[in-house]
Amino acid sequence: MQSGGAGADRRAVLGMGAAAAVTLAAPAIARVASTDMGRIRAEIDKRQDEAVERLRSWIALPGIAAENRNMAEACDQTMKLLSDAGFQHVEKVPTDGHPGIFATLDAGAKKTVALYFMYDVKQFDPAEWSSPPLAGAIVERPGLGKVMIGRGAVNQKGPEATFLAALHAIRAAGQKLPVNLVLVAEGEEEIGSPHFHQVVQRPDIAAALRRCREVYMPFASQNPSDGGVTVYLGAKGVVEMELISSGARWGRGPEKDIHSSEKARLDSPAWHLVKALSTLVSEDGNDIAIPGYAAKARPLSPTEKAMIAEVARRTSEAGAMKQMGVKHWVHDLDWQGALERLAAVPTINIEGLVGGYTGMGGKTILPGKATAKLDLRLVPDMTAKEAAAAIRAHLDRNGFADIEMKVSGGYDPTSTPADSALIRTEIEVYRKNGIDPVILPRLAGSWPGYVFTGAPLNMPAGHFGLGHGNGAHAPDEYYLIESANPKVQGMAGAAYSHVEFLWALAAAK
Amino acid sequence: MQSGGAGADRRAVLGMGAAAAVTLAAPAIARVASTDMGRIRAEIDKRQDEAVERLRSWIALPGIAAENRNMAEACDQTMKLLSDAGFQHVEKVPTDGHPGIFATLDAGAKKTVALYFMYDVKQFDPAEWSSPPLAGAIVERPGLGKVMIGRGAVNQKGPEATFLAALHAIRAAGQKLPVNLVLVAEGEEEIGSPHFHQVVQRPDIAAALRRCREVYMPFASQNPSDGGVTVYLGAKGVVEMELISSGARWGRGPEKDIHSSEKARLDSPAWHLVKALSTLVSEDGNDIAIPGYAAKARPLSPTEKAMIAEVARRTSEAGAMKQMGVKHWVHDLDWQGALERLAAVPTINIEGLVGGYTGMGGKTILPGKATAKLDLRLVPDMTAKEAAAAIRAHLDRNGFADIEMKVSGGYDPTSTPADSALIRTEIEVYRKNGIDPVILPRLAGSWPGYVFTGAPLNMPAGHFGLGHGNGAHAPDEYYLIESANPKVQGMAGAAYSHVEFLWALAAAK
Repeated sequence: MQSGGAGADRRAVLGMGAAAAVTLAAPAIARVASTDMGRIRAEIDKRQDEAVERLRSWIALPGIAAENRNMAEACDQTMKLLSDAGFQHVEKVPTDGHPGIFATLDAGAKKTVALYFMYDVKQFDPAEWSSPPLAGAIVERPGLGKVMIGRGAVNQKGPEATFLAALHAIRAAGQKLPVNLVLVAEGEEEIGSPHFHQVVQRPDIAAALRRCREVYMPFASQNPSDGGVTVYLGAKGVVEMELISSGARWGRGPEKDIHSSEKARLDSPAWHLVKALSTLVSEDGNDIAIPGYAAKARPLSPTEKAMIAEVARRTSEAGAMKQMGVKHWVHDLDWQGALERLAAVPTINIEGLVGGYTGMGGKTILPGKATAKLDLRLVPDMTAKEAAAAIRAHLDRNGFADIEMKVSGGYDPTSTPADSALIRTEIEVYRKNGIDPVILPRLAGSWPGYVFTGAPLNMPAGHFGLGHGNGAHAPDEYYLIESANPKVQGMAGAAYSHVEFLWALAAAK
Repeated sequence: MQSGGAGADRRAVLGMGAAAAVTLAAPAIARVASTDMGRIRAEIDKRQDEAVERLRSWIALPGIAAENRNMAEACDQTMKLLSDAGFQHVEKVPTDGHPGIFATLDAGAKKTVALYFMYDVKQFDPAEWSSPPLAGAIVERPGLGKVMIGRGAVNQKGPEATFLAALHAIRAAGQKLPVNLVLVAEGEEEIGSPHFHQVVQRPDIAAALRRCREVYMPFASQNPSDGGVTVYLGAKGVVEMELISSGARWGRGPEKDIHSSEKARLDSPAWHLVKALSTLVSEDGNDIAIPGYAAKARPLSPTEKAMIAEVARRTSEAGAMKQMGVKHWVHDLDWQGALERLAAVPTINIEGLVGGYTGMGGKTILPGKATAKLDLRLVPDMTAKEAAAAIRAHLDRNGFADIEMKVSGGYDPTSTPADSALIRTEIEVYRKNGIDPVILPRLAGSWPGYVFTGAPLNMPAGHFGLGHGNGAHAPDEYYLIESANPKVQGMAGAAYSHVEFLWALAAAK
């Protein structure tokens, strides 16, 4: 998941020591006949090996849009997995980038629920992994249980495979799905979903989505200590871009790397980049220094502040710091202040710096080019387009018009009302499982929910699922298969949570 | 050669369209019997294939100190080459880093001349080369002639092998060397010669050097268009360092890469580095903004300014710009101003920036560490030690005490008097070959001549040699073997220039 969507990342946001209860009205939902559910649960357990094998073979074929790696194969494989799980219509949807997928499962139900999948994964360097990132090895982790290690394990193939395992089990148990399904998927989530709107806005697909009250993505929501869950009512938007300073474009300094002694009489594109970057943020690097940049940023409402205050009271700052390996928040804020910033402030972050000689030791060159990779996080009512335009205008105003701005992806913030059936049902099912979820106004990370929550669809969008995983975008990414902690669900328990959720959505008013 | 010492780099400094004459008194030197010289020249020509093969096998074994690659083998190979060329004593000299070499050739002569060699080469990436960098392929270059392509071809194995070819030819011709030789070599030139002083200052080696009036390094001095030569009366000093900003050391921000959404509440070591770097130089990146940093920088003397003015009048600014692929000098200076800066100003250059994600596309991380690789160029009377200390103190004063400064190498500027026998003899031999060399106060690049020109040895040090090569530190580095231009010497002509130089030094008062 682009930008911190994976379960563990979200939990890191809080570092919850204990699940905190936030009072929200729960909908009256119809109870499900225990006999049916028991059969489905039995089929999930019976088919666990099959489900694990399905996930392993999915991990073995990494589609990586940033490297244009295996994209066609990864799309085909995902389409086959959807067909196998019972989707009657599975269609590749061409875009200006890598294709999306549109799939439907008509169960003859009254209600239709939409799902969001991604089939791409983040880049990886096998050298950094303790277990080969494509092997999907099952490893015993003390305190956790048996986990599968692999790129995409939690982000997003594990939770998606868990959802598919639920569909397989429902069918094998001879049960009728209580809702029809409309599924849209993309292969460019990890590069900022530059073309996903083309999938969602195709007239027939948009029409299918309009028949749905809500859309959700399967998710591994539980923290590994007490199984607590955080429900986010939205997410920040994101823009990923490169700022490239080059002699070729600047018309000053060298066009290619040249001997460093020439610095005495030649301008330096690398220094030019450093000076341009320096204008973007405050001296401590923590606040955006572009006048008007965040003019549309909506401050936290009293309700949102109350949510955060509640979370601050019930969660452990020390635990969160320990989990992240940090000792201070910016400006030495307290816990509540840190949580508020996480939800409320837009950011400009340096993801990477690369210019000139980057190997071992030194090399006496004056580089012809230097690049900063940035990501911007946006809060409502900022938009990705306006944020990028504001950076461009700022650079132009300050003598850096020559610096190339290459936006590789991004999208607007997303928000879903707390009183939507989606959120109410999530909370209901979590509570039924003994979890009183924490509610926060917004995830500090991002996912392209804006295509659903924004115009013209304007539908609630969220995440759901028990289970646990960690390491999205990092080495040794894993997904919990068999839990050693009774409070945390393994893959089978997580699959069953999707069964409960689908039935609850069918019943929700 | 560290920092722009290679022939072509030095010439790039001027981009000389025509060799400019600078009037300096030439010493009266004894004429050499033409018969002897003819025999030597014949032996050089006869042994050309052998000399080329020697260079090729030298290039095939790259000793790279920065990568700790082949260092023992490269030292042994160089020692064998020296023995083969007639040095009776060849000794490996341990240092706290990679070993140096001390070699002597006693010819029973009255005078003794010292030589400086290096046996290491710069790093390389074969993917960037049109011919394999270790193959030493002979390639026809239009207008130039036949060149050998390989890492170290011009920097510094080509000129060194050329000097050795001269020794082989003198011996084969049955001629007695007119001077004894003392040779010191290092294997860490490309990392800033951090231990070379340990070689030169070993008491017996220092004593041997004290018997010499001067020290020089073989060099490919000619520009490829008209064969012109520039004689430099010194070189800037250099310091190479890394500035490393890390959460671990700072105690703020993440210690390891963490999800970028955390930027909202965590400090960024990468932004911290950008802000620290930005304090080092002026807004245009061209002047050092550290108060007092260059307090000891000696301005150009009227004599030095006159030298530069003469060079500016006689050389082509357009040619220099074209050769480097640039359109403007800093501050839009004119040609003379650019040449003056090159000789007179200290610099802080960014060699490389590396932090966080540096691969294709983006990756949403907040890096735990970011590094800038810098090189500083120093002019007399600045010292490497004081320059590094000034940077450290500046960082400490400005809130960047946590930023690690890792100095990997460096040394002081070097100066040799214009009226030394070394410089007078260089000019004499160039003129004898129809070349009226340009004289400049200082090379903008660097070489560790300070170990010779500074206390306690205080001896003149310089470079000498006809011939041509280019691409030091760059892909497709080459050395001219057979020249297509009668004004430029190939390897044989260059070897003969060393013969002439040794005889002229023997005769010089």
